[in-house]
Amino acid sequence: MALQLLSTVGLLASGAAAAGHLFPSCQAELLSNNAVCNTKASVTDRAKALVAAFTIEEKISLTGNTSPGVPRLGLPSYEWWQEALHGVASSPGAVATVISTEARAFNNANRSGLDYWTPNINPYRDPRWGRGQETPGEDTFHIKSYVKSLIEGLQGNDPDYLKVVATCKHFVGYDLENWGGNERYGFDAIINPQELSEFYMQPFQTCARDAKVASIMCSYNALNGVPTCADSYILQDVLRDHWNWTDDGFYVTSDCDSIQNVFLPHNYTDTREEAAAGSLIAGTDLDCGQYYQTHLPAAYEQGLFDEAAIDQALVRLYSAQIRLGMFDPADNQAYRALTFGDVNTPESQALALKAAEEGIVLIKNDGTLPLQTKGRNMTVAVIGPWANATTTMQGNYAGIAPYLRSPYMAAKDLPGVNAIYAGAPGDPTTDGYPAAIKAAKAADVIIYVDGANSAEEEDRNLIRWSGERQDIMTLLAGYGKPFILLQMGDQLDDTPFLHHENVSAILWAGFPGQSGGDAIMNIITGKTAPAGRLPVTQYPAHYVNDVPMNDMNLRPNATSGNPGRTYKWYNESVVDFGFGMHYTNFTVSFAKDDDGTSSWDIQSLTKGCAETYKDLCAFQSVGVSVEKQGSVESDFVTLGFVAGEHGPAPHPIKQLVAYERLFAIEAGATATAHLNLTLGSLARHDDSGNLVLYPGDYSLLVDVPTQAMWNFTLAGNEATLEEWPQAPPRQ
Amino acid sequence: MALQLLSTVGLLASGAAAAGHLFPSCQAELLSNNAVCNTKASVTDRAKALVAAFTIEEKISLTGNTSPGVPRLGLPSYEWWQEALHGVASSPGAVATVISTEARAFNNANRSGLDYWTPNINPYRDPRWGRGQETPGEDTFHIKSYVKSLIEGLQGNDPDYLKVVATCKHFVGYDLENWGGNERYGFDAIINPQELSEFYMQPFQTCARDAKVASIMCSYNALNGVPTCADSYILQDVLRDHWNWTDDGFYVTSDCDSIQNVFLPHNYTDTREEAAAGSLIAGTDLDCGQYYQTHLPAAYEQGLFDEAAIDQALVRLYSAQIRLGMFDPADNQAYRALTFGDVNTPESQALALKAAEEGIVLIKNDGTLPLQTKGRNMTVAVIGPWANATTTMQGNYAGIAPYLRSPYMAAKDLPGVNAIYAGAPGDPTTDGYPAAIKAAKAADVIIYVDGANSAEEEDRNLIRWSGERQDIMTLLAGYGKPFILLQMGDQLDDTPFLHHENVSAILWAGFPGQSGGDAIMNIITGKTAPAGRLPVTQYPAHYVNDVPMNDMNLRPNATSGNPGRTYKWYNESVVDFGFGMHYTNFTVSFAKDDDGTSSWDIQSLTKGCAETYKDLCAFQSVGVSVEKQGSVESDFVTLGFVAGEHGPAPHPIKQLVAYERLFAIEAGATATAHLNLTLGSLARHDDSGNLVLYPGDYSLLVDVPTQAMWNFTLAGNEATLEEWPQAPPRQ
Repeated sequence: MALQLLSTVGLLASGAAAAGHLFPSCQAELLSNNAVCNTKASVTDRAKALVAAFTIEEKISLTGNTSPGVPRLGLPSYEWWQEALHGVASSPGAVATVISTEARAFNNANRSGLDYWTPNINPYRDPRWGRGQETPGEDTFHIKSYVKSLIEGLQGNDPDYLKVVATCKHFVGYDLENWGGNERYGFDAIINPQELSEFYMQPFQTCARDAKVASIMCSYNALNGVPTCADSYILQDVLRDHWNWTDDGFYVTSDCDSIQNVFLPHNYTDTREEAAAGSLIAGTDLDCGQYYQTHLPAAYEQGLFDEAAIDQALVRLYSAQIRLGMFDPADNQAYRALTFGDVNTPESQALALKAAEEGIVLIKNDGTLPLQTKGRNMTVAVIGPWANATTTMQGNYAGIAPYLRSPYMAAKDLPGVNAIYAGAPGDPTTDGYPAAIKAAKAADVIIYVDGANSAEEEDRNLIRWSGERQDIMTLLAGYGKPFILLQMGDQLDDTPFLHHENVSAILWAGFPGQSGGDAIMNIITGKTAPAGRLPVTQYPAHYVNDVPMNDMNLRPNATSGNPGRTYKWYNESVVDFGFGMHYTNFTVSFAKDDDGTSSWDIQSLTKGCAETYKDLCAFQSVGVSVEKQGSVESDFVTLGFVAGEHGPAPHPIKQLVAYERLFAIEAGATATAHLNLTLGSLARHDDSGNLVLYPGDYSLLVDVPTQAMWNFTLAGNEATLEEWPQAPPRQ
Repeated sequence: MALQLLSTVGLLASGAAAAGHLFPSCQAELLSNNAVCNTKASVTDRAKALVAAFTIEEKISLTGNTSPGVPRLGLPSYEWWQEALHGVASSPGAVATVISTEARAFNNANRSGLDYWTPNINPYRDPRWGRGQETPGEDTFHIKSYVKSLIEGLQGNDPDYLKVVATCKHFVGYDLENWGGNERYGFDAIINPQELSEFYMQPFQTCARDAKVASIMCSYNALNGVPTCADSYILQDVLRDHWNWTDDGFYVTSDCDSIQNVFLPHNYTDTREEAAAGSLIAGTDLDCGQYYQTHLPAAYEQGLFDEAAIDQALVRLYSAQIRLGMFDPADNQAYRALTFGDVNTPESQALALKAAEEGIVLIKNDGTLPLQTKGRNMTVAVIGPWANATTTMQGNYAGIAPYLRSPYMAAKDLPGVNAIYAGAPGDPTTDGYPAAIKAAKAADVIIYVDGANSAEEEDRNLIRWSGERQDIMTLLAGYGKPFILLQMGDQLDDTPFLHHENVSAILWAGFPGQSGGDAIMNIITGKTAPAGRLPVTQYPAHYVNDVPMNDMNLRPNATSGNPGRTYKWYNESVVDFGFGMHYTNFTVSFAKDDDGTSSWDIQSLTKGCAETYKDLCAFQSVGVSVEKQGSVESDFVTLGFVAGEHGPAPHPIKQLVAYERLFAIEAGATATAHLNLTLGSLARHDDSGNLVLYPGDYSLLVDVPTQAMWNFTLAGNEATLEEWPQAPPRQ
């Protein structure tokens, strides 16, 4: 797919120190008599047998991320905490396969565990969020599609073994770090059932219910008064009961120290012991931290939980290890054969470059791009704070890359180009200001590379270019030379440059990872044509003054002044979600492959649906013809949105329901995309969070801005596709 | 004096790279014929002669902080930007003398310039301010008293030469870094004339008018729509005309890049050239940055300023260099004889320790302190993120200290004490949590060292202890051992510990500098008795939700919800400004040395006043008897506040008008402090900012909480002591 935020393909980062890891030895006498080593027994029976061998003290000692193991039984220590790169790519399945292969190679070399606390799939609700960069963006359908491919790639398709355990985080309603007196550790997200179900829960539904991720991480925040790690409503009623997330080895981990946070600062319990026991009972099986290990002993003495509760958690945890093959002979496990020869292969390097290229979005172009460099002996000034960025291009939680290619490095290697560099000119007190001026004056073309870099534990106060950046950019742009703004990192309001006649082109490259510089120069020189689309709305600078970040509501509200959030509810964007230009023109129309029907009966649709989860039932596969003018070979991302007057008001502006990236459409060719609509594409959520198919008018809108529109209706009575479990009365 | 925020005595930090510095050579042929080398001519004539020798291009090249000099004339390059330690001490005059001596020694060794961009004297208006730690606190009288001693110490008392040039910054209304969509570079501080005159301007009035500081720095922000560096109202009408700040060599420097900010993000001018020329004309003589040097040439070509304007700026700048003795023979300059032998002397080390001790404030004590360690073979656990803090104790802009003594280091050196250490237990995911528990369990006494560390370019969102810190502290405090909270850095709401029975004592040590650890242990063990008072209000955690930081108003406002700012207007503090406990009891009463008068006639008072500035005229010197019980030798800080119904409503709760630190009051002794009241102590500012003596009721309150009160009245007609210059209509 084409929408992407990030595209680092790289090695692995371990949040905790990468402790040496040994497999439990079923050959050794200590464990060999335990049924956990009986490969013919069921996973559950094996896990139960192992857990039954532990004393209560040992059980409690095994509940933290840094597990001491049980030496007397030959169970080695284990570090449950590994971070995979946060980067997510245009081809998440392929990228995830590379990641999990590299993870296995590291594990086989005793360098890491196999439980990865990735991906971060909270929807990017507010542009200020410091960790929005880690996510696939603001659209739930996009995140769901992305996460499904990603989890499959990470966890593999071996029917017998999990390749790695992936972890969908942070469940749920977590998207604020530290803003206006609210800090993630104690923030209470107030979310109504409708928006909880239709927005905040959606990525997790796909992750747990459909992609069958093996691990879920509960979050720091509370949801409507209850810290998520202590909330049996979301951990049991929604996750395990409603989504049927009960396979062997599926477990919930806390975010780091979030069990502590149940006690303080949430003040949800009167004692530390109640926080630990309450979280365990609510369904949090593993504590990232020391809180379980420190306070469960006293909680047990106080009778706050019984042994069955900790047994259940440990059976889940060790079932996951069994499914990872840790207690099985290595011989018949393909994943155990992976080595460093499978790391950083030419194929994975090529994928890193391709993924980065696919994500770059062309926001403005007066014809300057692609830059004709061949045989022109052109001097290109690459100027700005990010001009020689390397690790910065990776974003948060990145691994150690085998190499990092900055924009300036890549420009230097372009044939026929004399690249000159000037650093951070934003600071006139350094020599940067005159150096940038000098470089720009000496150049034929100016590429200015700059952006915003957000961070964990911090939200942004500002989403605009600083005065000093605006000053230097417009100064250099005024020299009468092609001026290309290469925007990196998080979104900033590009208003000062979008309509500025001296700014020739704007490219947004986000956090493009290890091959970012090469990907960017391939796009700039036209070696690869840009086809990426914005995965987030570019908001105007004043948006941060328009709505408090702790207002979780997505819908506009005249009383509170909330102007709405995401492209579904906010209509004053600077650059639209889904926007992206090309080096050629595409004409989009509906393929004439349907039978002309323009109205459907709701009851007929639901009767014909045999899926367990009715939102997944097919509705129509709509063919879209994409005709390319011009000679440039180019990808095209076909985006389909549903809009219209159906279901409860207010109605969203539109909602993404399908997309397909068409690759390498040749000169003059026409390609066909298929937008596969389901009943879920048409359904909406009512006030209680139920998913309902409503009679009314529907439109399918293709492309951004809309190039083609198909109107149809649903008739009959509304039908509920999914009953949303209601939360019990909160404390 | 006793109120203090900071007490680093240390060496010097240079903001810019410490460029090698050479004195101009009046012996060399190039300059020797210029009248600048004529030591018998007036400073102005000498400076004018030098400036007259420059071409217009040379003049413009000399307007930035990094000055290239004029090699053809033998005028060497010069770096105008030096930072002195921000630390300010209980004895600011003595400390400043050390600083300026060390500055001269560095200068004589060709290691630094002589223009120091210190002190930061913006009143600490809001507890969130990231640079509040650099200032003397929230009270204007305290800042004024402090700054007067400091400037005298820095600039010296040689009638012929300035020891160094001090710089009072940031003029004016600067006390916000980056909060809620407001950034210092573009923030427009809306301040009414009354509060501008009575609060924001007060430190600068003392600095410029009374202490005769040689340099003033204009600030990033705008004041009521006009960026301060481009505002002739404040730079000419107030500073130079009203305060008569026109001595030879008095100059205004911009803050770094603040001339650029006049253009962007303030958007105050249409062009860069107008920003540069407008600031020069408004009275900003030096640009910290490259903006003058880059854009004044085109501005000159456009006729935006005439040569007289730049001549005036350069005459001011070179007059300062002349007053520093740079163009005079070294032989008859005592300051030129200072060497590294004058740096880091035993006396300055002792002063660093004394200053740190004087600033430590005892907030709570159940009798645990002073800790009796002698001969007890006591195990003391020093636990927490700041337990072994070294550079952190220095705060912003600190120099490289000759040594740094952490609390743990100092505890280890206590005789009869076995000190054990555990680091940052706030993070249970590390080993810190169990390590802290282990250390606490092994100890006889627990000292927990933690705090908040603010920063430039960042304001705080939270002024409370985090949940994890509250958790670990109350956990450790629950072990039934003496538990001493040693609070460092900025203020945090101590509510969870103030009335917690397990917390034995709370000491606040701020940023105590190089000898901080020793100072703290001297206080804890009773070697030195604590007598410091809080220089700021300790606000409740919810204060950050009660008033937006960009609301500059100090007075409570029912409409906006502003609950008031500083102890003068806010009455719900957690710990009061001026509060501080002792190891002994002091009884305070008025000495019977007055004639019993309790009413004065305003016209008689003003007629008897011969001072140029009538606020400085003496009113009464009020004797206060301080009787000490108990055997502990201790300092006592006698604080006098005025309150009462006089002048325009609303009336402040009280205002500090005088204080005296009585040193080392012996056992059973009674000492007398003198609170020297002036007409300024009684006067208040009207809506236009005029200073007026009003008829009405007055009370003099002594100590916090109040121990003695003297009521008196002023009769007759109100009298204006100072007419405040009104701002012209703003754009």
